[in-house]
Amino acid sequence: MTDTASLHDPALRAFASDNYSGVHPEIIDALTAANLGHQVAYGEDVYTAKLREVFTEHFGNRMRAFPVFNGTGANVIGLQSLLPRWGAVVCASTAHINVDENGAPERVGGMKLLTVPTPDGKLTPELIDREAWGWGDEHRAQPLAVSITQSTELGTLYTVEEIQAIADHVHARGMKLHMDGARLGNAAASLGVSLRAITTDAGVDILSLGGTKNGMMYGECIVALDPDAAPGLDYLRKMNMQLASKMRFVSAQFIALYGTDLWRRSASTANAMAARLRAAVEKIDGVTLTQPTQANAVFATLPAGVADKLRDQFRFYDWDQATGEVRWMCTFDTSEADVDAFAAAIASEVSAAR
Amino acid sequence: MTDTASLHDPALRAFASDNYSGVHPEIIDALTAANLGHQVAYGEDVYTAKLREVFTEHFGNRMRAFPVFNGTGANVIGLQSLLPRWGAVVCASTAHINVDENGAPERVGGMKLLTVPTPDGKLTPELIDREAWGWGDEHRAQPLAVSITQSTELGTLYTVEEIQAIADHVHARGMKLHMDGARLGNAAASLGVSLRAITTDAGVDILSLGGTKNGMMYGECIVALDPDAAPGLDYLRKMNMQLASKMRFVSAQFIALYGTDLWRRSASTANAMAARLRAAVEKIDGVTLTQPTQANAVFATLPAGVADKLRDQFRFYDWDQATGEVRWMCTFDTSEADVDAFAAAIASEVSAAR
Amino acid sequence: MTDTASLHDPALRAFASDNYSGVHPEIIDALTAANLGHQVAYGEDVYTAKLREVFTEHFGNRMRAFPVFNGTGANVIGLQSLLPRWGAVVCASTAHINVDENGAPERVGGMKLLTVPTPDGKLTPELIDREAWGWGDEHRAQPLAVSITQSTELGTLYTVEEIQAIADHVHARGMKLHMDGARLGNAAASLGVSLRAITTDAGVDILSLGGTKNGMMYGECIVALDPDAAPGLDYLRKMNMQLASKMRFVSAQFIALYGTDLWRRSASTANAMAARLRAAVEKIDGVTLTQPTQANAVFATLPAGVADKLRDQFRFYDWDQATGEVRWMCTFDTSEADVDAFAAAIASEVSAAR
Amino acid sequence: MTDTASLHDPALRAFASDNYSGVHPEIIDALTAANLGHQVAYGEDVYTAKLREVFTEHFGNRMRAFPVFNGTGANVIGLQSLLPRWGAVVCASTAHINVDENGAPERVGGMKLLTVPTPDGKLTPELIDREAWGWGDEHRAQPLAVSITQSTELGTLYTVEEIQAIADHVHARGMKLHMDGARLGNAAASLGVSLRAITTDAGVDILSLGGTKNGMMYGECIVALDPDAAPGLDYLRKMNMQLASKMRFVSAQFIALYGTDLWRRSASTANAMAARLRAAVEKIDGVTLTQPTQANAVFATLPAGVADKLRDQFRFYDWDQATGEVRWMCTFDTSEADVDAFAAAIASEVSAAR
Repeated sequence: MTDTASLHDPALRAFASDNYSGVHPEIIDALTAANLGHQVAYGEDVYTAKLREVFTEHFGNRMRAFPVFNGTGANVIGLQSLLPRWGAVVCASTAHINVDENGAPERVGGMKLLTVPTPDGKLTPELIDREAWGWGDEHRAQPLAVSITQSTELGTLYTVEEIQAIADHVHARGMKLHMDGARLGNAAASLGVSLRAITTDAGVDILSLGGTKNGMMYGECIVALDPDAAPGLDYLRKMNMQLASKMRFVSAQFIALYGTDLWRRSASTANAMAARLRAAVEKIDGVTLTQPTQANAVFATLPAGVADKLRDQFRFYDWDQATGEVRWMCTFDTSEADVDAFAAAIASEVSAAR
Repeated sequence: MTDTASLHDPALRAFASDNYSGVHPEIIDALTAANLGHQVAYGEDVYTAKLREVFTEHFGNRMRAFPVFNGTGANVIGLQSLLPRWGAVVCASTAHINVDENGAPERVGGMKLLTVPTPDGKLTPELIDREAWGWGDEHRAQPLAVSITQSTELGTLYTVEEIQAIADHVHARGMKLHMDGARLGNAAASLGVSLRAITTDAGVDILSLGGTKNGMMYGECIVALDPDAAPGLDYLRKMNMQLASKMRFVSAQFIALYGTDLWRRSASTANAMAARLRAAVEKIDGVTLTQPTQANAVFATLPAGVADKLRDQFRFYDWDQATGEVRWMCTFDTSEADVDAFAAAIASEVSAAR
Repeated sequence: MTDTASLHDPALRAFASDNYSGVHPEIIDALTAANLGHQVAYGEDVYTAKLREVFTEHFGNRMRAFPVFNGTGANVIGLQSLLPRWGAVVCASTAHINVDENGAPERVGGMKLLTVPTPDGKLTPELIDREAWGWGDEHRAQPLAVSITQSTELGTLYTVEEIQAIADHVHARGMKLHMDGARLGNAAASLGVSLRAITTDAGVDILSLGGTKNGMMYGECIVALDPDAAPGLDYLRKMNMQLASKMRFVSAQFIALYGTDLWRRSASTANAMAARLRAAVEKIDGVTLTQPTQANAVFATLPAGVADKLRDQFRFYDWDQATGEVRWMCTFDTSEADVDAFAAAIASEVSAAR
Repeated sequence: MTDTASLHDPALRAFASDNYSGVHPEIIDALTAANLGHQVAYGEDVYTAKLREVFTEHFGNRMRAFPVFNGTGANVIGLQSLLPRWGAVVCASTAHINVDENGAPERVGGMKLLTVPTPDGKLTPELIDREAWGWGDEHRAQPLAVSITQSTELGTLYTVEEIQAIADHVHARGMKLHMDGARLGNAAASLGVSLRAITTDAGVDILSLGGTKNGMMYGECIVALDPDAAPGLDYLRKMNMQLASKMRFVSAQFIALYGTDLWRRSASTANAMAARLRAAVEKIDGVTLTQPTQANAVFATLPAGVADKLRDQFRFYDWDQATGEVRWMCTFDTSEADVDAFAAAIASEVSAAR
């Protein structure tokens, strides 16, 4: 019926999401190298053993790593492991766990989310305190964890100091700190720090470490930085349907990404392309930038009708249809030519619309 | 820290499970061909469109396909889509959903399993009726679906007629029929029939179609043969954390497997190697075969101590420690030499133990 | 060890909640009259049959009634019956289901709540639209129901027209309308309308009808006004642990309450006492009333320290510790003397604090 | 529309279930005595404080009591409190939690039941071991609790020694022991021992203590005999919708039942009436008794057609339609005349059927 020929047009470019891109060639190589022969299934293979070494170098001796399939799985299981059944999670109202996971945290994880509006996707101790209260009151879902996203869903960053301040605040109240690091590499690359500096050393208890959005085919990793805070992860991963049988292939990808500087190279490219895009569009009269560009996302408002015109050539998402705000994401394989062509198209359509 | 070199010994051979093997080279090629460039995430890509064509040829015009990450995900979501919240599933007590999924059907799917002991892993209308009763009684979880596995967890097969009889029986009682087809290819290859003959045409309502155990890296597919019976699968897949962002890579693997005769070639090899292994061991005095070998599994009892000795060389699982029963699985890359070496080792260890 | 003597001081009075009061004597009589002899358990008794007649007179021929134990049970099960597994509920952020049920809607009901801040506890079509969007997007929990509370958690009321406007708006978007009527009697009494006018006739699909807060010992009732919108309630009630075995005693209470004008008498008393309290305290310099008093609640802010002093004599709850706002509730057995004594105490403590 | 007159025929008698009877007059008195005046809701009342004293006398200083609405609630919440999210419960296949709760343990409690067939409804260490294995295997729901029913669903009893042996066995494997004591009083009365002898002192960790089936209107109690084994019960009770607001009335009933010898008097009557019924029917040719009568139940098989004829006069349940087995239950208000009339009717119908 078919063969394995390529079906798609590889020249197609988009600024919709970092998961529109494919797999970094070094990761394809790693997958191929891990193939052939037999390996024990479900994580007792040599690649998963090696992954532990690689992640120990990044996150410290106490870390325990649990590769899973995707980010929703990592977030829900990681948070569930932090909480008793009566727990609730304080998060920004823009958090991926709140708006993009079809209620999986509530429905599968059984947790309540206590959401706080923020200007820029970032929680602060003060914002956390709007929902962090009521311990001991059986009528209130107990706020026992806080989840922050680094870099945030709005393309902004927490500094090392900001994370530390949140961790101290959270721990002082007997709560635990989860970080959604689907784009952790973008954050570390932009800040010019190690992964450890914004996770283990800053006081994070459990991390959803991204892979797919930084050039992997599939796979994220729950990294318990304080394993005492998160028991039962092996059982939780299985019962929540996120245990890969041929785990060597998830682990091999992570080794290729985080066992070299590939994660930083790829994230830096994505970040630089976002900066280049911002620089180009902020010169365009009629485009208003709505968030700082600290990682690989650019948020802007466009004149009415322009977004839909642009989408004939370049796919991207509306962020807020009411205000005309759009989101543009760059990835490891976004090129300078891609950015320049997109910026030119924006300029042209905005000009035509005026 | 590391490079992408192969870390494992490809000469290592096992008879533990079909997921100890890696990825078929044709599937690796398909993954590579699907790479580079941008594609819409979450299934709006050209590979997933093509997958629909391929599966339509196999399963008919009404089918709807929902690729997921793994078999537990396919089973739980597929069954959940068949059931109201108060539903229960009649299944064999040896069913994978009952014994190998850490309660995911109950915990994530919210369903009750009504289990029936069977001699060979196969349900019959009579066996189903042991638990298919009590409709309208609010105290009883309502038996509204039946799940059968083809080929079964015990390496046995349902004939076309047996499936039809079950489907008729089930439908006459207002229930739906789910098939766990993690090894559907092995069944079709062994029976010498099309996939459609033992699914759509036999009256199955929803299918968990296997990929990983027949040479894919990851990925299974929920195939709604009667989509009216199984609404909301797109939402259920997402909220149950089984929606792949870079779905083109799941779909490309399925196209390579089921868009050619690769599925049948690979399954036939696995089946033939199991038959070869059976033929070899049934000559060994002291080995008792405990189930028919109709697909790619051989079940046997060994003299005390022999299994552990053998595992120094070849990994495999105990099936029932109380009786000394073991399970040996063959896969697409099991060779005649593998089988002969293993059979020789069995003969040698059994002889030594006597 | 003990006898059945009264252990408590019946002179103790509180303004904390309508559930601090006991049981109306007419309801005690009804319980006694329903006792002795045998009746079929689980709702096939003559009292539950009679309850259907009584509620049919109030809510119309199509209604179906499912008595349960408490309000959280009624809310969670009623909402669950309206929703597929992927559904979400738009509600005010102050809704009881959001703040006082320890996440039961999410954890037991499996639903996501999409909350909207309101000034007075009341949703409007415009406020609903802040969260009623995104149908068909698998990433978003699907907003398929709206829940309003009548009278609200802030002691305010929806007019008949306001409910109709919400119902029309909700239905036009394919959503269903739930009403938390824990204090429905207070609303109907205050508005001077029938129960039907603000439920069935206004377009409500399902109702949590209160009993406990209007003088019953225990018991609320899920009333499906459009039973087509809410299937499976008998199964859902049982599997959610809200099916009373000796149901005659729940039904007998409801017959006593709603089969006579007791519900209106009791609610009117509670409303009148709240109005009396408001009239008394609005004259006190230093007390600021923060919500209209449309049912049986008074909300006010007190000078710092006054609330705690007052609580030595009269128990009540802080509503917002940050602002010093308190809530005072009146019930069917609040007397004029109770109100006057409480108002005098408030005046005295406020004066002392100045 | 109606008044509080009695609607039912108090002369109607049934042998269907102990919950067909009403409320013991001493308990009605207790409810009345607890009425009038205000008490803090949700358990901070003087009756609930007194209940703690009463139950401490029965169950020891370490016990913690959590009154709930019904037995399913007590069982599900009690078991949930013993288990991590990945836990499973070993129980008899005839257990109420398995057959009569519409999957609430799985759906609401999130637990898997590992069921064992028994001849008489009683587990033994050997029977428990059929499912108590596989700890550490992430694919298997972890058997971390055992649930036994005293007296059992088949009207049989565990001796003190049998419970101790089970408790020792269970604890030695790191599991916890739950007892469904919906009819605990019948067991203690029949054995002639204290409640403590078959619970706390025998090694039970958590108890569902029955009220409704021994003459209460509603209410059961979760009694954590080892509170360290069962944390978070206050939160679990609320989030599982089993927290009564006017809790004084649940507690007052328990005080009347267990703060005097009423529990033993009532249970003894029920037991004696079952013994009387057994003695009468075992003389009837054509009736075969199928279980020992150790508490308040009689199980028997009748000639075809007799059960339905008898039900014109006396309601009772089929136990197994395939074999013609029926169950007859006696309660606190079953009289000798009731028994004699029923036995005469059985004799007459059996005779007519021959």
